[in-house]
Amino acid sequence: MSMAQMRSLLTSFDLQTGLSPDRPSIQRRLSAMAGMFYNEARYAEMLAEEDSLIYEFYDMGVPAQAGEIAFGTSITYPGRVGDEYFMTKGHFHTILETGEVYYCLRGQGMMLMENPEGRWEAQSLTAGAAVYVPPRYAHRSINVSPTDPLVTFFAFRGDAGHDYGTIETKGFRKLVVDKAGRPDIIDNPRWKEA
Amino acid sequence: MSMAQMRSLLTSFDLQTGLSPDRPSIQRRLSAMAGMFYNEARYAEMLAEEDSLIYEFYDMGVPAQAGEIAFGTSITYPGRVGDEYFMTKGHFHTILETGEVYYCLRGQGMMLMENPEGRWEAQSLTAGAAVYVPPRYAHRSINVSPTDPLVTFFAFRGDAGHDYGTIETKGFRKLVVDKAGRPDIIDNPRWKEA
Repeated sequence: MSMAQMRSLLTSFDLQTGLSPDRPSIQRRLSAMAGMFYNEARYAEMLAEEDSLIYEFYDMGVPAQAGEIAFGTSITYPGRVGDEYFMTKGHFHTILETGEVYYCLRGQGMMLMENPEGRWEAQSLTAGAAVYVPPRYAHRSINVSPTDPLVTFFAFRGDAGHDYGTIETKGFRKLVVDKAGRPDIIDNPRWKEA
Repeated sequence: MSMAQMRSLLTSFDLQTGLSPDRPSIQRRLSAMAGMFYNEARYAEMLAEEDSLIYEFYDMGVPAQAGEIAFGTSITYPGRVGDEYFMTKGHFHTILETGEVYYCLRGQGMMLMENPEGRWEAQSLTAGAAVYVPPRYAHRSINVSPTDPLVTFFAFRGDAGHDYGTIETKGFRKLVVDKAGRPDIIDNPRWKEA
């Protein structure tokens, strides 16, 4: 059977780096994160110095259908903007009633979640931790290690879709910041009601 | 927020053994595999000696709903019944149009797949390999290593369900056997049309 006839997929993701030799990643640099970090002055200073890579992930392009499973790895690099750790933008699923699982391969981090009704939850990501993001919860990966990338393998329904706009507009209710060398969950001073 | 109020889940699965300290696994011993291996005489001999653990996996008990993602690890131990490698029973999903992803954490194996129309596919499982099982495909994990467990992390739709009966009755069209120290895919001499 030739590759072209195959419906199954085989893709490698390095267990340490999270990177795949088989296809390009989608990269989010500091310049793509305008408005996401609460210390805007520090964000501007850092961006003037270097447009650092904040995170990258893979989109395997499985069909956007309810019976398919989208999957890949996500790698969030270590660093901070002021006292706020590097993180992903975070998003709701367009089909809100769909969940997602993240299996942490390496690093130290947190999964921050909130639903439209105002509930929020946070779980620790360490190597070997599987975190289940239930349906209806926006979710963001946060790297709290000073040195190591945060590497996760994720899976969600093929048709779930990504709603980035809600978080870009409103932000998350909570932020995760460094406080004397340890992660601390604080209220987001810039959070807006819809 | 107390644990009881949490809707998210945090569960650990060891990246080397695949085992979770947080909950019991479901175990399949040789005695549960009657009729699955083609060398029935050798199966009976081995079972008379020891009811070996062939594989184990986790059921996280997420709600059986279309928006949820069921996940966990699967561990298939090394060994053979005659020249046929230790393997999982294999199953279709009850909702046939649902796929599944397996991310291999450790070991050497194969994912054998077939659909009701008679197509079959096989992919290699090695550490770092993500294998996507498309909708409509029965799937079986096979450990071809003489020494190491085959450890995978899997994810599929919460309501997909397991149809074991079809494979228990008909078998897979193909088998994976050892031939001079290497895995070989052969026709299943006992395969039956429905």
